[in-house]
Amino acid sequence: MIQRELSKKPHMATSEGDEELVKMILDRWTNKDFGLDEAKEMRYDVYLSFPDKGNPNRVNVVSPAGNTLFQTVITEENLHDSDQLHADVVTPFAAYSPRGNPQGRLVYAFQGKLSDFEALNRTVDLRGTIAIVRYGGVGRSTKAINAAQFGVIGLIVYTDPMDINDGIKDISGTYPNSWYMPPTGVERGSYTQDFGDLLTFSFPAKDYTYRIKESEIKGIPPIPSQPIGFGDAERLICQLGGVAAPNDWQGSLGCTYNLGGPGFRDGIYTNSNVQVNVYNYATVISSANVMGMIRGSVEPDRYVMYGNHRDSWVHGAIDPSSGTSVMLEITRILGTKVKTGRWRPRRTIIFGSWGAEEHGLIGSTEFAEEFYSKLRERTIAYINVDISVFANATLRVQGTPPAQDVVFQATKEVQTPVSASLSVYDNWIRHFNRSSTLHNKIVPLLATLGAGSDYAPFLHYLGITCMDFAYTYDTSKTSARIYPAYHTAYDTFDYTARYIDPGFTSHQAVGRTAGNTLLRLADSIIVPFGPVDYWDTLQSFYNAADANMRAQLTARGLSLDPLRDAIARYKTAAEAFSKIIQDAKDNKEKDPLRIRMINDQLMLLERAFINHHAMEQAYFSHVMWAPRTSTVVTFPGLANAYSTAVSLQRTEDWEKVHKYLTVAIQAVENAATTLETAAAL
Amino acid sequence: MIQRELSKKPHMATSEGDEELVKMILDRWTNKDFGLDEAKEMRYDVYLSFPDKGNPNRVNVVSPAGNTLFQTVITEENLHDSDQLHADVVTPFAAYSPRGNPQGRLVYAFQGKLSDFEALNRTVDLRGTIAIVRYGGVGRSTKAINAAQFGVIGLIVYTDPMDINDGIKDISGTYPNSWYMPPTGVERGSYTQDFGDLLTFSFPAKDYTYRIKESEIKGIPPIPSQPIGFGDAERLICQLGGVAAPNDWQGSLGCTYNLGGPGFRDGIYTNSNVQVNVYNYATVISSANVMGMIRGSVEPDRYVMYGNHRDSWVHGAIDPSSGTSVMLEITRILGTKVKTGRWRPRRTIIFGSWGAEEHGLIGSTEFAEEFYSKLRERTIAYINVDISVFANATLRVQGTPPAQDVVFQATKEVQTPVSASLSVYDNWIRHFNRSSTLHNKIVPLLATLGAGSDYAPFLHYLGITCMDFAYTYDTSKTSARIYPAYHTAYDTFDYTARYIDPGFTSHQAVGRTAGNTLLRLADSIIVPFGPVDYWDTLQSFYNAADANMRAQLTARGLSLDPLRDAIARYKTAAEAFSKIIQDAKDNKEKDPLRIRMINDQLMLLERAFINHHAMEQAYFSHVMWAPRTSTVVTFPGLANAYSTAVSLQRTEDWEKVHKYLTVAIQAVENAATTLETAAAL
Repeated sequence: MIQRELSKKPHMATSEGDEELVKMILDRWTNKDFGLDEAKEMRYDVYLSFPDKGNPNRVNVVSPAGNTLFQTVITEENLHDSDQLHADVVTPFAAYSPRGNPQGRLVYAFQGKLSDFEALNRTVDLRGTIAIVRYGGVGRSTKAINAAQFGVIGLIVYTDPMDINDGIKDISGTYPNSWYMPPTGVERGSYTQDFGDLLTFSFPAKDYTYRIKESEIKGIPPIPSQPIGFGDAERLICQLGGVAAPNDWQGSLGCTYNLGGPGFRDGIYTNSNVQVNVYNYATVISSANVMGMIRGSVEPDRYVMYGNHRDSWVHGAIDPSSGTSVMLEITRILGTKVKTGRWRPRRTIIFGSWGAEEHGLIGSTEFAEEFYSKLRERTIAYINVDISVFANATLRVQGTPPAQDVVFQATKEVQTPVSASLSVYDNWIRHFNRSSTLHNKIVPLLATLGAGSDYAPFLHYLGITCMDFAYTYDTSKTSARIYPAYHTAYDTFDYTARYIDPGFTSHQAVGRTAGNTLLRLADSIIVPFGPVDYWDTLQSFYNAADANMRAQLTARGLSLDPLRDAIARYKTAAEAFSKIIQDAKDNKEKDPLRIRMINDQLMLLERAFINHHAMEQAYFSHVMWAPRTSTVVTFPGLANAYSTAVSLQRTEDWEKVHKYLTVAIQAVENAATTLETAAAL
Repeated sequence: MIQRELSKKPHMATSEGDEELVKMILDRWTNKDFGLDEAKEMRYDVYLSFPDKGNPNRVNVVSPAGNTLFQTVITEENLHDSDQLHADVVTPFAAYSPRGNPQGRLVYAFQGKLSDFEALNRTVDLRGTIAIVRYGGVGRSTKAINAAQFGVIGLIVYTDPMDINDGIKDISGTYPNSWYMPPTGVERGSYTQDFGDLLTFSFPAKDYTYRIKESEIKGIPPIPSQPIGFGDAERLICQLGGVAAPNDWQGSLGCTYNLGGPGFRDGIYTNSNVQVNVYNYATVISSANVMGMIRGSVEPDRYVMYGNHRDSWVHGAIDPSSGTSVMLEITRILGTKVKTGRWRPRRTIIFGSWGAEEHGLIGSTEFAEEFYSKLRERTIAYINVDISVFANATLRVQGTPPAQDVVFQATKEVQTPVSASLSVYDNWIRHFNRSSTLHNKIVPLLATLGAGSDYAPFLHYLGITCMDFAYTYDTSKTSARIYPAYHTAYDTFDYTARYIDPGFTSHQAVGRTAGNTLLRLADSIIVPFGPVDYWDTLQSFYNAADANMRAQLTARGLSLDPLRDAIARYKTAAEAFSKIIQDAKDNKEKDPLRIRMINDQLMLLERAFINHHAMEQAYFSHVMWAPRTSTVVTFPGLANAYSTAVSLQRTEDWEKVHKYLTVAIQAVENAATTLETAAAL
């Protein structure tokens, strides 16, 4: 079974296991019976962070006399066969954390959000302390960046059983006895805010490429940071002194969480410090993407892309091999059809097995940077299937609005694993749905794409319509933040087969859904995008701005009316354009150039929302989907600027609100123009 | 005659005369017999600078006792009919100069280049002085920005007869007795370094648009600045004290140019100051573009654009009406064909009569900003004909390399005014030529496009293949920097008809050449671009870098080899692609999608050189043609960074060299990729 093969050996980016999979995938994609038309490696010299094999990271409790009273485990306990004993299991680390051995009094800072440190700082002097925080609430590196602002000198991050295990912490209730994370499980991860190679922003990381200095990198931890398991965290947190943390900061470790005196309460660790020992190193090293292609017969210069990363943190049976196995099954089926001359797609299909995703979507981003021009001009859509199965309750799809229609069509044609009479669509709408103003009914929820996997460079940098498929939980049955073995040494084939998808039927459902979508995108004469669907989002963004911002904007002489008008113009244009599409379908339009003109408008619609000049953060150029920190669900640039202005009330902040309101209007106008009659002023 | 009508009334941007021409052009383009398919006004609220009608700018000599010993003329002397007496003749001013009345001792600083002020500053304390400089050598506003760096508090700019009149300064030898500038002629102009509306960078200047504060504008004079005629300049410069200026700083005013004591020598102005009196004001005001369109029959979603500005400084018979009259003649002929059903182009043609060009290419830039998406995706080429006739000796064409082929074809089909047996091409190659490595022969020189007219936003911001046509001088017969009436009140119909193009035959030659080119671009089944021609430029850029930089680069560990390899890859790709084009022509390729694929590659070739992330100056995003200050004729970013690094030898400067070398390589790789087989990895 392919997934067993993919996950039998740990295959962190650039490791021996990773390079073996490069060969394995390349072999399959060049196979004479079921391979693709072309396949090859594409390599980049990327900046990666690793722990020191000879000197593993750890957290110690150090007595006033300098004795080590406690030390965290070096790596996960072996719990199945010798899975966790494999020599290539990487010891837990926070990628891109600096080296160092700071020690100080311990404090507990909940999730490490800015508001958490602000609250804590009101009663505890944080300078010179070590903070322990839990995963969730905010990105990994942001916790460290926030901590450092308050004078914290070292950071410990753990996974609370409340957040991942539905509160279960005893080994009798955790893997291998259930799907829950064992006490020694540690979530590894990249501690970065941006994506792509950190030294070569906007350029592919080739040998000739200009690199910034390591000291110029932004968005990584300024202080040594280390993740630990909840078994070790319990030893630290349950000894903390000081007052009790607020109710919503408490967790499932079986004790009252105190904030820290700073430091421990009187007891086994009286007056002891905590020392964070990080021995990470960073290096520029060659990482491969494996690329494969099936040539399009009618429009070889239009691309439909499909990708997933290959690298894992440890065995990665689920992350990413549950996605890679689906991709390889799809390429095997399509490759067989092509090799036997039974089929060739209308458009070119490009497959990508990306390297170094876990370190920060690096392989996919370097690819997007290297082929910026041709991808931007020619790509219809990008499909991402990373973790294909989190759990087996329902499909969940993230995507931008133009993709909604094709995903609906595909999901109606695929059966659920549980019943031949229940479609993936009908099951999906029961779990995730929303009320659509446009369609005037309940529809399945096409969720928002963040920047959590390799679609990010395609969406945020290139402005390509993207979608991401997975099977996932029934959220009424678990509150786990993510599947409990995520990024631990327990993400193994055994874990997958026993607890995530026994029988692998959900993998099949995802494969059929993604494959059906891929074929529709590659083969439909008219690109199966619904241009009107963006209006649903635009109007909801407008409504949120109108409800939450209008009074303050009016007081500052700013009007939402031009935005309202632009959105109305978009609706008119999209509806007229939809009628053109329908007419072309009804009349079985044969003129290849008329069809191409329609398809170009559909392909380029998403591009109209890109503004490389205006957005604040390097690659987040998509005016609709850039990261939003404000709670107002509207255009992110506008929402964030508005929140800042309301909070600080400085003139320059209100000018930024005006700027981002203009950015939003201009993007909507450009999108409308893209759909309007081409030969018109 | 249309040109007489266009120039009978001064028509500075947004003036009554300008608005009358808006109506006139709109009337013609909507005429039922010879109009276009569609025409309309498009308006922007732009930031323009004007002199105060009631209080004209002037330069005074002020005695120690405070008496005015001399005052420059308020405006040009009337020399023909009442042309120069028209109430709408704008008095001379430097647009965007701040108001003020600084006075101080006068110094002479040649052309106001940085090196001029550096040299002058070695012997003269410039703090608190007024500097007089002449046009040429460096941009208008740069003179003022340079001056202010040395403590100069007011700037006077004049036109030396050596630079514009081949040394002639006596009225017997100037207009109306010849084409030379009379002593009271003053070159007006915009004193800006950037282009487009200064308050709304990257956004169209609509009512809702965010605007920066006036105090945030960059690239305009920091000190009051005023242009004067050489008659007045003689009164100032010939009285200067101090030592004689260097030989190459001398001019044709009939005296030795001294540097200034600072101040005047003993004589009529002993111990007197010079006062620069500027009463400009700036305002946001509505300016119109007039847009016209002929719908394409086969590819309505592909645009060929043709434009010229409409606004002048005074009558503007040459600048811009010599170009506008050509454009209106072309639209009349094509409009007639369309209205009578005899012809319709394959692609859509869009005509633009731009507003507010003289203030900084504002109308065209706002248009490019408003329609960024659709223009970027759909525009094959932009043709600019601004001043269509500088003089009647030869055609000169500026353009990017893909345009060379179509311009060569067109010019071979048009006769010169002087002989039916002499083509414009054969005449052109005699005056301007170069040795082509690619073609291994002498070819006419397609000169480099700067940012001097409305092609700039299309080239530097959108990355569209551009060309600019004009008839011009025999440079062996005059060394005039430009035609002598440029931007003065003498740029009239009388001047044009008597001295620039008697019989208007050169206008016809330009019209036929530009029209022939336009039709080829609009009607050729395969876009008539020569993709290999970019290699000629790339290789010459490489050779210049190799000859001038390699030693120092090697010493810094930087190699030009990846650039060489990228250029070789470009050549291979372009040659293979040219063969595909030739095969398609030979086989009379009928498949519309194969033709469209080729045409898309040709259209998008220029786009591959745009890098919005990397270049230093706002809109100059074209890696090949951004402004170059270095003397090494290679990629401008690289050349400029290299010159700085060699001069300052700081580590960070050499890192910038590496960065711009990477930018260049990446652009060439993207261009090669654009031409390579689409369905390939």
